[in-house]
Amino acid sequence: MSTTPGQTYDVIVVGGGISGLCAAKLLKAHGLSPVVLEARDRVGGRTFTVQNKETKWVDLGGAYVGPTQNRILRLAREYNVKTYKVNEEENLVHYVNGKSYSFKGSFPPMWNPFIVLDMNNLLRTMDQMGQEIPREAPWRAPHAEEWDKMTMQELFNRICWTRTVHQFAKLFVNVNVTSEPHEVSALWFLWYVKQCGGTMRIFSTSNGGQERKFVGGSGQISACMAKELGERVKLQSPVYRIDQTGDAVVVETVDRQTYKAKYVIVATPPGLNLKMHFNPELPPLRNQLIHRVPMGSVIKCMVYYKENFWRKKGYCGSMVIEDEGAPIGLSLDDTKPDGSVPAIMGFILARKCRKLCDLSREERLKKICEIYCKVLGSEDALHPVHYEEKNWSEEEYSGGCYTAYYPPGVLTQFGRVLREPVGKLYFAGTETATEWSGYMEGAVQAGERAAREVLCVLGKLPQSQVWQSEPQSLEVPALPFVTTFWERNLPSVGGFLKLVGVSSFLCGVTGAALLAHKKGLLPRS
Amino acid sequence: MSTTPGQTYDVIVVGGGISGLCAAKLLKAHGLSPVVLEARDRVGGRTFTVQNKETKWVDLGGAYVGPTQNRILRLAREYNVKTYKVNEEENLVHYVNGKSYSFKGSFPPMWNPFIVLDMNNLLRTMDQMGQEIPREAPWRAPHAEEWDKMTMQELFNRICWTRTVHQFAKLFVNVNVTSEPHEVSALWFLWYVKQCGGTMRIFSTSNGGQERKFVGGSGQISACMAKELGERVKLQSPVYRIDQTGDAVVVETVDRQTYKAKYVIVATPPGLNLKMHFNPELPPLRNQLIHRVPMGSVIKCMVYYKENFWRKKGYCGSMVIEDEGAPIGLSLDDTKPDGSVPAIMGFILARKCRKLCDLSREERLKKICEIYCKVLGSEDALHPVHYEEKNWSEEEYSGGCYTAYYPPGVLTQFGRVLREPVGKLYFAGTETATEWSGYMEGAVQAGERAAREVLCVLGKLPQSQVWQSEPQSLEVPALPFVTTFWERNLPSVGGFLKLVGVSSFLCGVTGAALLAHKKGLLPRS
Repeated sequence: MSTTPGQTYDVIVVGGGISGLCAAKLLKAHGLSPVVLEARDRVGGRTFTVQNKETKWVDLGGAYVGPTQNRILRLAREYNVKTYKVNEEENLVHYVNGKSYSFKGSFPPMWNPFIVLDMNNLLRTMDQMGQEIPREAPWRAPHAEEWDKMTMQELFNRICWTRTVHQFAKLFVNVNVTSEPHEVSALWFLWYVKQCGGTMRIFSTSNGGQERKFVGGSGQISACMAKELGERVKLQSPVYRIDQTGDAVVVETVDRQTYKAKYVIVATPPGLNLKMHFNPELPPLRNQLIHRVPMGSVIKCMVYYKENFWRKKGYCGSMVIEDEGAPIGLSLDDTKPDGSVPAIMGFILARKCRKLCDLSREERLKKICEIYCKVLGSEDALHPVHYEEKNWSEEEYSGGCYTAYYPPGVLTQFGRVLREPVGKLYFAGTETATEWSGYMEGAVQAGERAAREVLCVLGKLPQSQVWQSEPQSLEVPALPFVTTFWERNLPSVGGFLKLVGVSSFLCGVTGAALLAHKKGLLPRS
Repeated sequence: MSTTPGQTYDVIVVGGGISGLCAAKLLKAHGLSPVVLEARDRVGGRTFTVQNKETKWVDLGGAYVGPTQNRILRLAREYNVKTYKVNEEENLVHYVNGKSYSFKGSFPPMWNPFIVLDMNNLLRTMDQMGQEIPREAPWRAPHAEEWDKMTMQELFNRICWTRTVHQFAKLFVNVNVTSEPHEVSALWFLWYVKQCGGTMRIFSTSNGGQERKFVGGSGQISACMAKELGERVKLQSPVYRIDQTGDAVVVETVDRQTYKAKYVIVATPPGLNLKMHFNPELPPLRNQLIHRVPMGSVIKCMVYYKENFWRKKGYCGSMVIEDEGAPIGLSLDDTKPDGSVPAIMGFILARKCRKLCDLSREERLKKICEIYCKVLGSEDALHPVHYEEKNWSEEEYSGGCYTAYYPPGVLTQFGRVLREPVGKLYFAGTETATEWSGYMEGAVQAGERAAREVLCVLGKLPQSQVWQSEPQSLEVPALPFVTTFWERNLPSVGGFLKLVGVSSFLCGVTGAALLAHKKGLLPRS
């Protein structure tokens, strides 16, 4: 069957990222005729693997996968794309107040007992609050309205007692959602962490979201799907018009091609729905939702070195950097699994992305090397042999990375229409996922779910099978995160102070009573 | 000179609202050749006057003008469009806690002395904070970062002591910017109020932003400009592509026409820049800004009655309604200046707009009549003879009304690129104004400023004349708002309580001293 413009398809998929390609793939597997219209001259969307002699290959976009991300792992396995573990053999480094501290584990350890209590309470509270947020409908959480009116900054102001934990909390938001605590709704951020499996799962390398990468790059997944779909994928075809006033939906692209189909799956970030002119117009809530979900801000930066000097110093390459002057907030070893092409990947996040995007590439590289030199305590960091970077905030057809964030008030007022079909339009894209939304995993979940919605409306699938769970990956099993008795039961700083207060009072009373007794001031029985 | 597609113009103006038309008008007056590309089948943008037999004419969009809005008044005068005063002869009503209270003046008076202090302090504080915000660059305010990290809700939590004033503060935000206090940056809202001339100017009918309407409707202004521009205004021409890679800027419309020009003035709300595909892509900060400035939510509702029953009861038709169950937050008399076509205009604002937009027109009308009946204490309100409404959140080419709002963090991080030209693109639209941004007045200021920027780059105007002030309208002079000694000097509730505390302490000490003296416990000199 040839696929020429003007032809009628079963389904037009707008967007050739992982989500759109997954949707098309599933539709095709069910015998339908889909076409994928991709704005760029490549597939993959926010994943983007570049090959060159300096790097062999490099993921300029989404790259990390880990346990519980079973759908993307299934897809990789299908295409025989292997994963490898991000190096975490040696020590991680936490750089704070101008000093480096080596550590092992997911979170930088703290030593001051107040800070230990405070940190423990912060993470525990976020996870506890997350527990009452339904992943498929966060707007139905018992405290949805209250938490959505708060920014994460406000919530931190209530939870955190120490400056140290306040600072770390900010980094935690920066790293996970490439935005600032004062920019995001508390309800939304708590939902986001929850649907990734909690604070440990989202932030960890080993046993968490950053455990692995794909050998050869994440772009292969999309490339394989696109190959499978063949000429059903149309590159350089930005959609600017969707008309569903007739029997067929008519879609027009900037290169002035017209496509027709029974249904459309829009597999772009919600905000990029705005690139299209709709006839009829979208319903009011969706029309306004798509103006309210901006994408985060990040520059992904890979610095290449002659040698893997950090490993020799006992560092694995993971750096958690708290320093307003440092461009990078989090780094990970980006050396190839065979030890070749030594490199460090680092993120320029949120406010720092906006501040540093006016610099030249070279100026950014210099700043990055300087902070790596400080943090790793090695002049070797100042002598890179190659540099790759990608500022995702300049991408018209992504709007930013990693994902959309919800400013205060938006999730409760507009969230419910996020996945609601509009006539013959269905919505995919990782932002519409309920597990690992914002990640490649979410893209797969959303794309397949949207495809099944269409299959369902076409009578090819019962409603009950639209949402499907995924069996656990055998290669990448999830270990549970075990909390200790102390993690569960240590008080917050506030709780501790109260305890001390009450104890002091009781001690005082007891002491006074004893004294009174001794002095014979109490009536004897 | 004929104006056919394909022809080269001096300037393409995207958007045929007041701002775009003003830009084109000024360019034409300077001998240039502009063309205006308007997405809708009408000009006027967020102003929209409909004529029919039931209403004669009705403004479904922007309608109100007042003193200090000298540019739009100048334009109206040029086209011989007269203004008339919104009826405020009789009493206004404040409906709160289920009861109606008649009043005169700009703000509902309060009687409880604590509430008086609290209210006075709220308005005074907002105006004082506004004084340190530069209208042309709010991101340069001394406390810009701090205030931009806060929502207005957070600021209210710090300023307001009483529930009554908290509630009113919420309504104040709802009415002025059709959004919720927790949705907007404090810095942005304080800037917004300031650039309208302060809390009194923005909220008042007499001597304020709602003092007048145009006889025959605000749509006439755009209609007259469009008439003057003749075939230079192209309707039903949504722009979907702007290419400035060649010598001329090439602009394509959904109806598949191509226009070429030396420069482009984009006169849409910033968020609607997203409707266009740019080549080359916009710079990163602008690319992200336009995803971060949603439009407010409002349904404008006009209920028509046989008689002007409210005036007979001594009410002017202005209602300030605080009631979660009431659809309307603010109403104004909308009777024609000659007393014909009795009507009340009411706004369904922000959260209520989102909640009630799923109802049918009839259901909304019923709810509106019911609250008018309660507030005005008259069954007459239940018997409308006609109804007009416009839900602006359903408009694809406005995105909402009245104007864009800035969620926390956006103004300081992205604001500086709001008016920054991108190659041959210049930016107009009321959102880019520095006086009465969000109003028709701002649209004129912005459109003329953008036109002068282009005239300047073409060497037809010196840089120093790009920004021009406007002489005061003779017909609509501005009276100063005089604050009383008490308004300036009364303490806040907090200040008062401190005062009371200190006074009590001093009284206590004095009293104790007197007592001690009397009892002879003090050493005599």
